[in-house]
Order: sequence, then C-alpha cells, then structure tokens
Amino acid sequence: MNEVWKPKTTHKAVIVILDGVGDRPLEELGEKTPLQVAKKPTLDMLASRGITGIMDLIEPGIRPGTDTGHLALFGYDPYMYYPGRGPIEAAGIGLDLQPGDLALRANFATVEEKNGALLVLDRRAGRIHGEEAEELTAFLGKNIKKIEDVEVFFKHATAHRLVVVLRGNGLSAAVSDSDPGTAMEGKPIRQVEPLSGDPDAAKTAKILNQLLWEAYELLKDHPLNRERSMKGLLPANAIITRGAGMVPRNIVPFTRLFSSTAYVVCEEATVLGIARIIGIDGEIPEGSTADLDTDINSIFQAALNAYEKGYEIVFIHIKGTDIAGHDANPKGKIEIIEKVDKALGEFLKKIDRNNTIITVTADHSTPCNVRDHSGDPVPVLISGPGVRRDSVEKFDEISCAQGGLGRIKGTNLIRIILDLMNKPLMHGE
Amino acid sequence: MNEVWKPKTTHKAVIVILDGVGDRPLEELGEKTPLQVAKKPTLDMLASRGITGIMDLIEPGIRPGTDTGHLALFGYDPYMYYPGRGPIEAAGIGLDLQPGDLALRANFATVEEKNGALLVLDRRAGRIHGEEAEELTAFLGKNIKKIEDVEVFFKHATAHRLVVVLRGNGLSAAVSDSDPGTAMEGKPIRQVEPLSGDPDAAKTAKILNQLLWEAYELLKDHPLNRERSMKGLLPANAIITRGAGMVPRNIVPFTRLFSSTAYVVCEEATVLGIARIIGIDGEIPEGSTADLDTDINSIFQAALNAYEKGYEIVFIHIKGTDIAGHDANPKGKIEIIEKVDKALGEFLKKIDRNNTIITVTADHSTPCNVRDHSGDPVPVLISGPGVRRDSVEKFDEISCAQGGLGRIKGTNLIRIILDLMNKPLMHGE
Repeated sequence: MNEVWKPKTTHKAVIVILDGVGDRPLEELGEKTPLQVAKKPTLDMLASRGITGIMDLIEPGIRPGTDTGHLALFGYDPYMYYPGRGPIEAAGIGLDLQPGDLALRANFATVEEKNGALLVLDRRAGRIHGEEAEELTAFLGKNIKKIEDVEVFFKHATAHRLVVVLRGNGLSAAVSDSDPGTAMEGKPIRQVEPLSGDPDAAKTAKILNQLLWEAYELLKDHPLNRERSMKGLLPANAIITRGAGMVPRNIVPFTRLFSSTAYVVCEEATVLGIARIIGIDGEIPEGSTADLDTDINSIFQAALNAYEKGYEIVFIHIKGTDIAGHDANPKGKIEIIEKVDKALGEFLKKIDRNNTIITVTADHSTPCNVRDHSGDPVPVLISGPGVRRDSVEKFDEISCAQGGLGRIKGTNLIRIILDLMNKPLMHGE
Repeated sequence: MNEVWKPKTTHKAVIVILDGVGDRPLEELGEKTPLQVAKKPTLDMLASRGITGIMDLIEPGIRPGTDTGHLALFGYDPYMYYPGRGPIEAAGIGLDLQPGDLALRANFATVEEKNGALLVLDRRAGRIHGEEAEELTAFLGKNIKKIEDVEVFFKHATAHRLVVVLRGNGLSAAVSDSDPGTAMEGKPIRQVEPLSGDPDAAKTAKILNQLLWEAYELLKDHPLNRERSMKGLLPANAIITRGAGMVPRNIVPFTRLFSSTAYVVCEEATVLGIARIIGIDGEIPEGSTADLDTDINSIFQAALNAYEKGYEIVFIHIKGTDIAGHDANPKGKIEIIEKVDKALGEFLKKIDRNNTIITVTADHSTPCNVRDHSGDPVPVLISGPGVRRDSVEKFDEISCAQGGLGRIKGTNLIRIILDLMNKPLMHGE
C-alpha cells in the first residue's frame, strides 16, 4: 500500500471540434493536407503529450453530415438516434421538443389556386423575412392549435423558414414532402403521402394535408398579404413542408446516460439542435459568423465561461474549417486552423490543465478537392492527466494514423474521454 | 507445389491473463507504466517473435469487470451473455447449474422480529463461518427443497456467505435485493419486489419472500443459534439475498462452439465461475493466494499438467497484477510481472513450442493511479508457429499499440487464436 492515499479524482473535459478539418493531399499544398501545412504549435504540443488516432464518425467510408457527425461525437449511434432534419431545426431555434414529437421544416410560399390545386409560384414567398414572417407565424399559431386529436405548433426560423411541430398519438415520420422542390415551381404543392403501410403514416399525411389547406385559407386573406400584393410583393399565402422527423422516444438524455453535465459552444443551429435533442444546452456566441471571419476569441471566451461555471464537459465547435473545405480554399483552412491554435493556446493558460482532459477532433472531413464532406477518417488527439502517450508528435491526418488510439468509432470517443475523466461506464464487477 | 504433402496440423494454445496489468503513465515511474519498467525478457522475446496489438475487452472506454473481461476472453459477448453475480458465485463454488437456473448470493444475518417485520441487526450474523455456516446451510437444504413448483438449492460459499439457486419454470432475474445494504443495518429486510411487469418477476419475488420467511422460521429455533446466543454471539437466524441472475438459456458451451477442449487455471472463484458457466472446467491451484505472494510456480505447474493431459487450450490467470493496481502499488505490479516472466520462461521450456500458440494479455486495465479498473485498452501478444511478426519488440501498453494486430475487441481474440491453431471458424467457402 502507498502511504499517501489518493482519492479517486474526477477530471473535466474540453472537446474542440474543428468542423470538416480532415482533408486529402492537395496538389497546391505539395500533396499535403492543410493540417500538415498549418503552423499549429499548441495542437502539436497536445499531440506529442497525449494519445492520437483516427476516427470514423459513422463507419469507414460513410460520409457523415454535421448532424450525424455531432450525434456520434455526443455518444449516440447515428443509425439508431438520427431524428431527421425537422427536429434538429426545431430544437436549434429553441422549440422545446418532447420524445415522439413530429417536426417538419417549412417555407412560406406563394401559391395560386387552380382547379382545386395550389400551384407553387415561389417557394420562398418573395423571400419574406423578419417581422412579417414572425407575424404570419404567430397568426398561424393562434388559429391552428389542433387538427383532429393532434396539437400543432409553429415557430419562425430564419428568413422565409419556419418549423411545424405535431404532438399527439399515432404520428409517423414516414410521410412525403409537400414542398415540390426548387426545380418544380409552377407545379402544385405535393399531396403529402404516407411512405409506409403503417396506419400512423396515413393519419399523419391526412393531418398535414389538412394543415396545408387550413394555412392557405387563413393566410390568403391576411391583411399583411393584401398589403404585400398591393406593393407588388409576392404574398406568403401558403406553407410547404419537408424533412419530417420524429424526436426519438428512446433517447436517454446525455446527463443521465453519462452522469455528467455538458455545454456546447457552437457556430450553427444544427449543432445546437442536435445537442438539445440529447438534452445538452449550449449557445452560439455573439461574434460567431460560422465562417472564416468568425471571432474565435469570443467562442473560446464563451467556452471558458461554461468551464468556470462548472460544466464537466465543454464542447467547442468551429465552423470555418468546413466552409473552407466546401469553398476549395486550402489557404483559408490553414488560416483558421492557425487562428484556433493560437486561441486554444491562450485558453489552456486559463484552465486547470492538471485536472482537464483536452480533446481535438472533427465531425467529418471536408477535403478542399472534394468540396463536400468525405468518408475519410478524422484525426483525434486526447491529452491530459493520466492519458497514455504515444510517439506521435503532430496533429494531422497522416501522423495520427500512427497513434496509440488506433482507429476508433465516433461513438467510442466520449466513452474513452469519460473513462479518462474517471467518470466511467462500467459493465461487470 | 511442394512434393511432400503436408497435412493441416492443429496446434495447442496457452493463454496467459495478467489480471488488470494494463496501466497508465505513473508519475513515480517517470511517466511510464509498470509493464514499461519491468524487466521481462520472456514477454519481450514473445512480443518480438510474434504479433502484438491492443484490445478493448468490451468497447473502447467501457470499464470491464473481471467477470465480463473473462467472458469476452472466452469468446462470449458480455452484453449478451453476462449472467449477473449470483450464477458466477454459484458456479465458482461448484454448484452444477443448468440453463434457466436463477442464482442469488446470500448472507447469513441476524434479525429481530418486530411488528411483523425482520429488522437486520447484523448483515453477517457476527461473521459466522466454517462448520457452523456449513451446518446451517445443510439444514436449510434439508428443510426447504421446494417452494410452490420451484426447486430450491443452498450451498455454503465463504465465511457468512452462501448461494441460493431456484430451478423451475417462470423464473426471472428482474427482482430486487432483500439485503438492505451496508448502511442500512437496523432497518428491515427488504421485501423482494419484481423489477419488471413480467409475471415471471412477480412469481420469483413471491417465492423469494416466502423463502426468506421460511428460512427465518427454521433458523430462529435451531440449536446452534440458541447456543450462539447463550455464548453472547449473534445468531444466524435469517438469510438476505442479492445479485439475482439467470444462467443464460442461449449459451452454447465453449467446447461445442469452438470444437476445442479448454482448461482454466485461475486464482479466484469469479473466473472459475465464468468458465464453468460456459462449460469449461478448471481449478484454483494449491498455493494460489490471488495476491502478490502467490505461488506462481504452482500455478504454471497446474497449467503444465492440463497441457500434458491433452487440453487444447489452457488459460492461466494471475491475480496479483490487479491487486497491485487497486492498492496503488506500482512496485508490487512490477515485481509480479517479473515473477510471471520468469515462470513463463521456465514453462516454455517444458512445452512443445513448435506446436503451441502462446498469448499474453489482460482482462482489463487497473491503473495504479486510478485504483480501479479502467477502460484503457490492454496489450496483447500472440506468438507461435505461423504467426505473423510485426516490428514491436516489447510487451507493454505503448509498444503494442504499434503492433500488427491493431486494436481488436475482446471477443475477437479466441477466434484469432483458434484460426492460428488451424481450428478455425469458417464462414463461406
């Protein structure tokens, strides 16, 4: 026995997610990746003092979305828990969803009634936005509270977009979109069809079709739309829906599943929506632009505030790396990596390093020569008290493939971190 | 084509399990692990002449018990086949269990009847043990053979502990403990409650509650207890139960599943219990203390006997490494690793090396700075005829992470070994 009894201390964790940072060798960088070229002393220091590896967010070769990538990073199997776009959008704009809620994205649209059908003249109602869109959303909410036995909620999102939530028994996400899609303007609003033989799908389709007609009947005579028409603007006289998704009934909230509190500082509503669906709160900090010109310092300041408030796990999401990938902009990707490296270095001086597990990784790769997400694994580093050290000294796609973590799955990561925090999940005695 | 036709020879296997040997970098060892510091020429020779890797017994980051860790090493998915503590304890002390048996751990306890309830005065009946505990267990077995249509068996374990087995139809492990737990002395024996809506759970709870009362009625007037009371000792006038578990009905015995005979030389009843539940026999050799002072040579001698008897796979379990981890004793861990290394070196001289696949690994990590099991992967080496060789030359957590096996799962290991024994499981033609 040691003379000094050491209590089982638990550590905190900070997890930095560089959205889409993983890349492929680029000709313009001499067949290197942006991570290989960037000057990033802090990330390399963390890699050299910790353990590294590569990670498939979903499965090798499968391209994750930002949504499924983050779902995996939060520890939830994307094949089992992906709720679809509707609930993510709804949660992202702050709607308080319940398990079993059916959520859909919707647009205000301009339609013309012809032979009993509604022809879509403009899918965005002349890009209506701001107070007008807010007012019409509130008007719908006041006048359509229930269809049959199902409660209905509306919330304005951005510009011409809103979300619709149905709450009640016998709902199903297996229904088609009423939005006819970009190329189909001039065609009628699509009838919502059940996509399975399940009676719940038939019921849901029926309710949605009724909802679309009721919305049209209400909106077409709204004074605001008359005013728009008189001004020569397109009236927002209908809504069209897409992306039906159900909030999974079997999600155990993060805090309960992992017995730990967590907070997400992120740059977009998608990430916030995913976080809220699994019961984590968070924010998009002031100054975030979700692009290369974002205010990195305000993001790290928000993370520091959450850390100091006592959250055990703080996620930090940076979007610019992904934008640069989509824009085929390796130089921009290198710049934002270097900015994050610097800000992270300052951040590390302000936290209790001896008591914090630091992780840096990505939600997917967005190679500049693909201009889209790819299925390439992402690099991962974990550094902090008690963490095994491998011989890898740099944080990039190629170096980390030699690391002591080997090749892990996205859902493994939070469990590995919790184990290193000494807040483990145990099976057996 | 070779002119000489070579038959497909099969090999034997010896699998050494260093319980909890995996560790984390330790300050007192200059940020190295005990395996990195220990002098272990035999283990390093095997690593350099074989293939190495790291292994998650359950899943990355999930902390295994000794029981679930061994279940995985024996090739059975711990999430699917973990029977709970009752059956492991029962099988470990030699009760011949059948699939579907419900087994519980039990204590002799001292209770006082008050207003129709039994208040627990002492959860261990003054630590009754030895012949007295044996006699009372036999007395219960003689007088309670059946409750309703369910057969009941009792067997004394160690000290004040026994196991209770129920055999019959309509049983369920979804029942609560009657043992009120350490902090609850002075409170009544807990009513056993069904933990699911399944009628089997209700039936099992009812039978157990009846069993507890029958045991009390029998024990309270037993002459041995009167004698204890007269001597001022606490009477063992009740039993309290915990850890209900059912022997899985779907376990295919090891010998049948893998078409191979196996034997387990181990240092504790938990490992023996797990082995017996999957149909492998074994022993705890004379001289084993399950601690640092164990007689390593007698353990390897028992393994040699099994090997020479013709068992195709011999598992050797060493406990001291885990004890040292729990005790935060890196020096002790190093010592026992070195002792095993020496004994293994001698053992290898006595077996047919050209015909034996040697494996060394662990059932989980028990880092000295965690003082508990951790989810860190364990190192693994496989060496022997036909085994691919990687460039790793040392057997430790960091070196093996560079090995040619990569990062494997606990249940993979026995299948890899069987393949190298040329006794493979095949899928397809």
